[in-house]
Amino acid sequence: MAHTYQFPRPALTVDVVVFALDDDQLQVMLIERDLEPFAGRWALPGGFVRVEETLDQAARRELQEETGLKDIFLEQLYTFGDVCRDPRERVVTVAYFALVNLVGHDVKACTDARNAAWFPANDLPRLAFDHRQIFKMAQERLRMKVRYQPVGFELLPDRFTLRQLQQMYELILDRKLDKRNFRKKMLATGVIQETNEIEKGVAHRAARLYRFDKRAYRRLTKQGFKLDI
Amino acid sequence: MAHTYQFPRPALTVDVVVFALDDDQLQVMLIERDLEPFAGRWALPGGFVRVEETLDQAARRELQEETGLKDIFLEQLYTFGDVCRDPRERVVTVAYFALVNLVGHDVKACTDARNAAWFPANDLPRLAFDHRQIFKMAQERLRMKVRYQPVGFELLPDRFTLRQLQQMYELILDRKLDKRNFRKKMLATGVIQETNEIEKGVAHRAARLYRFDKRAYRRLTKQGFKLDI
Repeated sequence: MAHTYQFPRPALTVDVVVFALDDDQLQVMLIERDLEPFAGRWALPGGFVRVEETLDQAARRELQEETGLKDIFLEQLYTFGDVCRDPRERVVTVAYFALVNLVGHDVKACTDARNAAWFPANDLPRLAFDHRQIFKMAQERLRMKVRYQPVGFELLPDRFTLRQLQQMYELILDRKLDKRNFRKKMLATGVIQETNEIEKGVAHRAARLYRFDKRAYRRLTKQGFKLDI
Repeated sequence: MAHTYQFPRPALTVDVVVFALDDDQLQVMLIERDLEPFAGRWALPGGFVRVEETLDQAARRELQEETGLKDIFLEQLYTFGDVCRDPRERVVTVAYFALVNLVGHDVKACTDARNAAWFPANDLPRLAFDHRQIFKMAQERLRMKVRYQPVGFELLPDRFTLRQLQQMYELILDRKLDKRNFRKKMLATGVIQETNEIEKGVAHRAARLYRFDKRAYRRLTKQGFKLDI
């Protein structure tokens, strides 16, 4: 395709911060770079936007190619355009953040992707480019969002205990929460519903399972709420 | 500068949705296009990102060149990358939204800019490209933000009456608010402070002037709050 606008243009990439929850940590997916610059350094999955694809398509394609992850919650985060963020030339990157429920995905398949691995969010290695800054903004966005929207449920399985739910909030917010206060406020939002089921295969006393109310979830995602925890 | 990555790349622009408040309307700044495509159609101020400037710098430069506005509140909104949003070739745009206090700015100078004019937000003309979509997202963001952050104050003069403050919220949210409830909840946030001054030069009974508490403002901008109005 001919360029209508005849002047130098930045290269355009997408990068994705993928969060997942396992039993006791918030995890982030990273890729080990095999090319310069930053060869051997860990980086966010991502790559160049093709002329014939949208930004969302580029993010999903790169994520699947590099990590095997697909059909996950993905949202645009911010576009990073510092002039010298790539030592080779001017590269602007549209950053995304993604949330994955590890229980519902084949983690093994993911981590089998060449050079892809999960790292604890609070103990990441040194990252390539400005990816540390991108990660920090994604973490901040996630912390804000869980208090204003029921988005964190993307990290949990369909049925979950209140203990799991509280642990998710504690891991994202990086602090302990008062159990009684948390349960009272969470139930008051109307976004979760008790089910007739209880946990299976646990050593401790089996707890009630909850699920989220899809209609309340959609309504609150749109309207927003404030979870004062 | 040589291109390290040898493949076609999208063009990159910035576009800015500038909101301002006058006595009884929320206004948006538009530019009349004199070139094809969409010659004669109104559009958001914006233009191409230069290789040597950041995205924020590009947004501020274009805004000043096209409208005369400078030193205003500006925040990145979202990056729009639909494949066919520009009929000439692939163009990705990083959209910003900006808030201006019209009292503190030389509106005449602004509207003297070639082909630039303010339009009521609820009665915009037909816009070029996907600028209607960009405007809608900016409006949505503004409506969310005023309930979670004290950002709307950027639209008001340093000293303002509670009536002006309520009117600002009503114009942004596009609905009437209960006066007593609004005042109670707004005062409870701690973000506004009574001053010793009263309105000057008004026909009706002069009202108390308020200002925002800069420390509370900064703290609440960072932490967020929920204004249940």
